[in-house]
Amino acid sequence: MEKKVVYIAGLGLIGASLALGIKRAHPNLTILGYNRSEASRIIALERGMVDQVTDDFASFAPIADVIILALPIKQTKSYLDILARLPLKDQVLVTDVGSTKAEIVAHADQVFQDQAVRFVGGHPMAGSHKTGAAAADETLFENAYYIFTPSSQTKAGSIENLKELLSGLRSRFIEINAEEHDRVTSQISHFPHLLATTLVEQAVAYGEEHPLANRFAAGGFRDMTRIAESEPGMWTSILLSNPHAILERIADFKERLDQVAETIQADNQEAIWTFFYEGRKHRQEMQIHQPAGRDSAYHLFIDVPDKEGVILEILQLLQGISLVNIHINEENREDIHGILQLTFRQAEDQKRAQELIQKATSYTVLAR
Amino acid sequence: MEKKVVYIAGLGLIGASLALGIKRAHPNLTILGYNRSEASRIIALERGMVDQVTDDFASFAPIADVIILALPIKQTKSYLDILARLPLKDQVLVTDVGSTKAEIVAHADQVFQDQAVRFVGGHPMAGSHKTGAAAADETLFENAYYIFTPSSQTKAGSIENLKELLSGLRSRFIEINAEEHDRVTSQISHFPHLLATTLVEQAVAYGEEHPLANRFAAGGFRDMTRIAESEPGMWTSILLSNPHAILERIADFKERLDQVAETIQADNQEAIWTFFYEGRKHRQEMQIHQPAGRDSAYHLFIDVPDKEGVILEILQLLQGISLVNIHINEENREDIHGILQLTFRQAEDQKRAQELIQKATSYTVLAR
Repeated sequence: MEKKVVYIAGLGLIGASLALGIKRAHPNLTILGYNRSEASRIIALERGMVDQVTDDFASFAPIADVIILALPIKQTKSYLDILARLPLKDQVLVTDVGSTKAEIVAHADQVFQDQAVRFVGGHPMAGSHKTGAAAADETLFENAYYIFTPSSQTKAGSIENLKELLSGLRSRFIEINAEEHDRVTSQISHFPHLLATTLVEQAVAYGEEHPLANRFAAGGFRDMTRIAESEPGMWTSILLSNPHAILERIADFKERLDQVAETIQADNQEAIWTFFYEGRKHRQEMQIHQPAGRDSAYHLFIDVPDKEGVILEILQLLQGISLVNIHINEENREDIHGILQLTFRQAEDQKRAQELIQKATSYTVLAR
Repeated sequence: MEKKVVYIAGLGLIGASLALGIKRAHPNLTILGYNRSEASRIIALERGMVDQVTDDFASFAPIADVIILALPIKQTKSYLDILARLPLKDQVLVTDVGSTKAEIVAHADQVFQDQAVRFVGGHPMAGSHKTGAAAADETLFENAYYIFTPSSQTKAGSIENLKELLSGLRSRFIEINAEEHDRVTSQISHFPHLLATTLVEQAVAYGEEHPLANRFAAGGFRDMTRIAESEPGMWTSILLSNPHAILERIADFKERLDQVAETIQADNQEAIWTFFYEGRKHRQEMQIHQPAGRDSAYHLFIDVPDKEGVILEILQLLQGISLVNIHINEENREDIHGILQLTFRQAEDQKRAQELIQKATSYTVLAR
């Protein structure tokens, strides 16, 4: 069998991590790389992430069996334009990694409409605060959702071929309509990002007249604004490429704020209580309580004193037990107590850990 | 010197933890406790948190030198009414623990206006997901802000006396005007809570027609909605007792959402980029990056493989170095990578830890 050629355009964190993940399952594939700037090109080549690199996107495209556009949304569209004008291999498989899908899928449908190109929209739901090929990591996509959004250019078997190619990522592959992908992510990702940034800006403006606002900002505020530190360029593209769904979520949210304001204005104790009660109930029921990409999460909350060595003491007790998450918080604690939280995948691990800790220490251990 | 009598009304988590914290610095004080329900009364007495208990609030008030109302906001006001009608000791010091202050301080000013009672509003900014005297913890308030809001009933020396009484809590005491307290907390606590609950309710409603919304809810959404699980009763009281500031924050936020919506509608790339850019810059500059109650925070981000024992390996390397925070996340990672985050109080600890890890392992370590 002829050696297949995979061409990855964009050797940033995502592209280079995809290269590593593909090599993990298919060490004998030829991986070619394109990157505009030299730094990531050199790193990807020198570290063996790719077999050859180019700064001329068009040069490698005609020899590729699979082309992965690991580029920002805007560039993805113009590179699709370029691909449509090139003499690509028959049945070449083209995919992308954009965070919004409808615009890209529609664009691919249009530019490839009379061609044998097989296009599948893709969205690996993982990332990092780091960037560039230097930060590439073959485990980046492990247990993360990797979404495929078919188009009219997605011929039979295309998605199966992609899953096989990307099997080394160990992601959770799932197939969704592109428009539905964009609606769903507007609610659980795009709009919350916008909300977090708006809350930061509101607090900063308020803090100019009320300086203690910044000083007292604690656990809840910190959690709610963490994602406001995301990369501005990426989120600008997301908002611009998914305007309808996001605007609809903004309008809906404003109506919801009006409803809450009305209950406050009316001094309606019962309605406010129901609002918080239902919110708590629904949050507790949501799947986000389980680490996504895992089937389950079992927690232990342990009251530990504020002294050195206590975490090591606990972890030494738990050697051989597989932990998903460890968190200790001794910060300003309006809404979190100074506790060590351990999270396990298996109920039996949680149970065993609880028994071990209770046997060896006098700390209060709460299982949840 | 006569043995002073401290009377704590309400032996829930806060009241009972205050009792423990007071005893820590003043083991010879007499602490009396009131609680309506029997369970916490028995626990507080049996565990020696208090010296005597009652289910009749009025009975102990006349013999107290200090009265701490550790009750919900609404009850605090009616217990102030009761106190105003009792033959209290001259110069008795009365304080409370309510999360909003203007309403309570105004009420105390009114009911005590012709009396020698010394009233100081109080707000210890700490809590836990646990409740009741059984969860009491003498370290609950360590490093947390403990706010005093003076009233016209706050005679000279009152706050100094309270600080001395509460010194065993090891809190950060601070004095603020009650109205300003409520404005500041509306921005960094009350409104964000309302926002988190609204976001949960919006996502749940959306999820009914778009079921994948719940499935994909990941890091950002999880962080933003965590505080929606707070206790409904407490937050209802907070909203009802601080309506003006909260309504003002809602109106301001809606205007800000309108501004963002306008930039999206206008496809204004530059304005959207500036919005996210400024948000990131301001978030990075905010003091919340430092654990409140500590003076500083130095982070290490370590890329660790998904295998057992790796955390223990790292922590064993760091024995003797004081850690503030440990966090590992290998969950669905749209906006967080699978990294171990270690947080230190001292720059030299961070530096030493980084050197130790880099010397002993091949993991990438990022200091920040």
